[in-house]
Amino acid sequence: MLSSIKSVNVLGITDLSGGGEEAPGGDLSALSIPGGRSMSSHPASSSAVVDPDPLIRKHRTAGATLTVTANGTPLADREVVVAQRRHKFLFGCIGFDFIPLANGETATDDGERRSLGESPASGSQQVADLWFDLFNFATLPFYWGHFEPVRGRPDTERLLTTARWFADRGIPVKGHPLTWHTETAGWLMDLSNAEIAKAQVDRIRRDMTDFSGVIDMWDVINEAVIMPIFDKYDNGITRICREIGRIPMVRMVFDAAREANPHATLLLNDFDMSAAYECLIEGVLEAGIKIDVLGLQSHMHQGYWGEEKTLATIDRFARYGLPIHFTETTIVSGHIMPEEIVDLNDYQIPEWPTTPEGEARQADEIVRHYKTLLSHPAVEAMTYWGLSDGGWLGAPGGFVRADGTPKPSYDALRSLVKGEWWLPPTTMVTDADGRVRFDGFLGEYEITAGGRSVTFTLDEPGDAEVAVSL
Amino acid sequence: MLSSIKSVNVLGITDLSGGGEEAPGGDLSALSIPGGRSMSSHPASSSAVVDPDPLIRKHRTAGATLTVTANGTPLADREVVVAQRRHKFLFGCIGFDFIPLANGETATDDGERRSLGESPASGSQQVADLWFDLFNFATLPFYWGHFEPVRGRPDTERLLTTARWFADRGIPVKGHPLTWHTETAGWLMDLSNAEIAKAQVDRIRRDMTDFSGVIDMWDVINEAVIMPIFDKYDNGITRICREIGRIPMVRMVFDAAREANPHATLLLNDFDMSAAYECLIEGVLEAGIKIDVLGLQSHMHQGYWGEEKTLATIDRFARYGLPIHFTETTIVSGHIMPEEIVDLNDYQIPEWPTTPEGEARQADEIVRHYKTLLSHPAVEAMTYWGLSDGGWLGAPGGFVRADGTPKPSYDALRSLVKGEWWLPPTTMVTDADGRVRFDGFLGEYEITAGGRSVTFTLDEPGDAEVAVSL
Repeated sequence: MLSSIKSVNVLGITDLSGGGEEAPGGDLSALSIPGGRSMSSHPASSSAVVDPDPLIRKHRTAGATLTVTANGTPLADREVVVAQRRHKFLFGCIGFDFIPLANGETATDDGERRSLGESPASGSQQVADLWFDLFNFATLPFYWGHFEPVRGRPDTERLLTTARWFADRGIPVKGHPLTWHTETAGWLMDLSNAEIAKAQVDRIRRDMTDFSGVIDMWDVINEAVIMPIFDKYDNGITRICREIGRIPMVRMVFDAAREANPHATLLLNDFDMSAAYECLIEGVLEAGIKIDVLGLQSHMHQGYWGEEKTLATIDRFARYGLPIHFTETTIVSGHIMPEEIVDLNDYQIPEWPTTPEGEARQADEIVRHYKTLLSHPAVEAMTYWGLSDGGWLGAPGGFVRADGTPKPSYDALRSLVKGEWWLPPTTMVTDADGRVRFDGFLGEYEITAGGRSVTFTLDEPGDAEVAVSL
Repeated sequence: MLSSIKSVNVLGITDLSGGGEEAPGGDLSALSIPGGRSMSSHPASSSAVVDPDPLIRKHRTAGATLTVTANGTPLADREVVVAQRRHKFLFGCIGFDFIPLANGETATDDGERRSLGESPASGSQQVADLWFDLFNFATLPFYWGHFEPVRGRPDTERLLTTARWFADRGIPVKGHPLTWHTETAGWLMDLSNAEIAKAQVDRIRRDMTDFSGVIDMWDVINEAVIMPIFDKYDNGITRICREIGRIPMVRMVFDAAREANPHATLLLNDFDMSAAYECLIEGVLEAGIKIDVLGLQSHMHQGYWGEEKTLATIDRFARYGLPIHFTETTIVSGHIMPEEIVDLNDYQIPEWPTTPEGEARQADEIVRHYKTLLSHPAVEAMTYWGLSDGGWLGAPGGFVRADGTPKPSYDALRSLVKGEWWLPPTTMVTDADGRVRFDGFLGEYEITAGGRSVTFTLDEPGDAEVAVSL
């Protein structure tokens, strides 16, 4: 740090007043930097709050020109119906609640096996219907201590049934997490560090293989930043991470995961949004470890981040040129957790009610948050941490109350996802060349005419020429 | 001084084993971890406050047996005088204040050229005498914006004169810093990023070469954790670090430094004591970049850390098996800066007086802090950030008041460094085999008998057999 207040102007700081947001972006190619890796540079400070809607249209929609033919001939001057079937953006939510429902378990069955985050009033068919009407991406729990409380007796069948239940309904599933120091298996504590590391690698290989084709996306390691210095209690994962270091730990579990399922999408996930996670990512990438997606947690029990912080955070992590998933988001519809709480798990209260004012605030913040995320091209997924109230920490963080009725947040988000950002079945008339034009959000569509249907996708923003043969 | 002559077995290393210093240290050798690097594991939680004195004796002293000969014959039953000349531990302080004195500049000369950290009442011969009576290691300023405010006109001669002034008095000198986004050269802003990177590398080569043999220890890069996301103002160094990333930046400047002076000791230095610095270090080491010393800043304008935090911090960074230097420490003898200040530079007040209560507290904390550092074997240096008050932030952080009189902290620290931890000239009598025994702090000693003197060193803690020929 500095040691004087006297000579602030020596540098000619007066030149810097413009607050220059963009580095001029010079070219280092003329300079030999051993191992230097050029980074794609999203600007680090484009965080002024601006209207997100034009950016959402820019990054998330295509202007499609469909040329419709039948038997090789343009289908001219004909009514067709175009309808969106799916968003490309992953509007995700945990599916923990539905494990009993998917497995046909009665209420009395499930009490004992309830996973983290399963909320009491949640797993009903009614709530499931609300889930499928809003989301297109599920996260299922693989916390080692719950998944395999007794060594050699993993809960594979039950989770596989649940994963297939989602997959059969067209929902891709992510497993969370394969490596984490919290909620890990207690029996690791009886092993040597070498045995723990082997058990961790074996667990990854076994579970990724068992679920391959049903779950092809995994949070491979969770919270590696704090992993080796986690000091709330002793556990096997912290032990080995402290011994070998974070990067060898990440390498070990990613190597195992990549080998077990070469087609899977592998995430590095963390709650630490500080420079620590940046440094970890840079170290991991410099070490040559291939990460497919960066996962950013964003539990907001202590208050909505706001657009500026959200965009600044995305910008910092978008610098690495990797897709970003918001993996764990909560915004409460009750009082806000006091800011002095550092570990959210330390906040345990008997009741945390949802309130009308809180629900109105939540609905507003949900809209702002989803709009903010979709306005940034690096974000590809957003997973909400529980549709129903009463899950983690007993917080009123859901879009559905404990009695199963939807809150304003549910309706507000649905009016975006299936309203403003959605093309419902829409009748159009082809021109003389068999063409129709429309703007739509990226995703999967269906066109129907004369009782025949064809699906097509809009994958990239901007103008799209699509030929369909009915 | 040590109560050494009486208690020969003062080291009593076996008595100190209770502290549980070593982690159980599981063995991962059975498991193949590609690229896995085993870490030396200082424990992460040996931070209970214990009496530091036995640990200081364990890690910092040797039990020496001197065998004295003259002309090949043991010098039996003779009076000899043994005296310590230097500590191995680097008791450092910045030497910024003495640039004018070393250069023979008058008071009117120096106003304009005053470097960062030169305090108004500091550069006198009287204060210099206090400096040399306490410290054995100096840090000199190489802030680029001050060192070379106009491109091509570096302040080399003046700094070289100062560095030699210290070196001639037996004081090793460290240069600080070669790469930093703050106080960097304003003219970098006119260059492309490739040109900035080249200028940075050229600057390192030039200055390390110019000062080679006089300054052979450098803070090569300062505060790399925040460097690419520093957003207080635009600057050339943040620009290139943002573009290429932290690890390529560290590699670039360390490669240049290593090449310019292969014999120099090269530091990575940071103020960020969070997991972010750990992650950066792990990434840098995994990338194969050789770091000689980890520098930890510890300005305590907002209050003394205390033993527990200090030891926990050392433990976290000692895991990498590298020597640790406390590079920048300040403990104030006035009121404490409010804790809500995040960037210390934001605290600008017209007057920050030293107080009698503050001086008593500072003296106590200084003793506790130095004892804590010496009680941990990983720490090799401690640099205090300014002997005199009125330096950085105008804080009363010195051991000497603005009027040049020493505070209680000066006397307290001197009574350790040159008292309790020091062997003054001491008369001993050799035995029939020409031997004397004494316990002393690691460092350089002189033995004198019959008008002849020889120097010897105690380099490692524990028992030492030394043969000297007078």
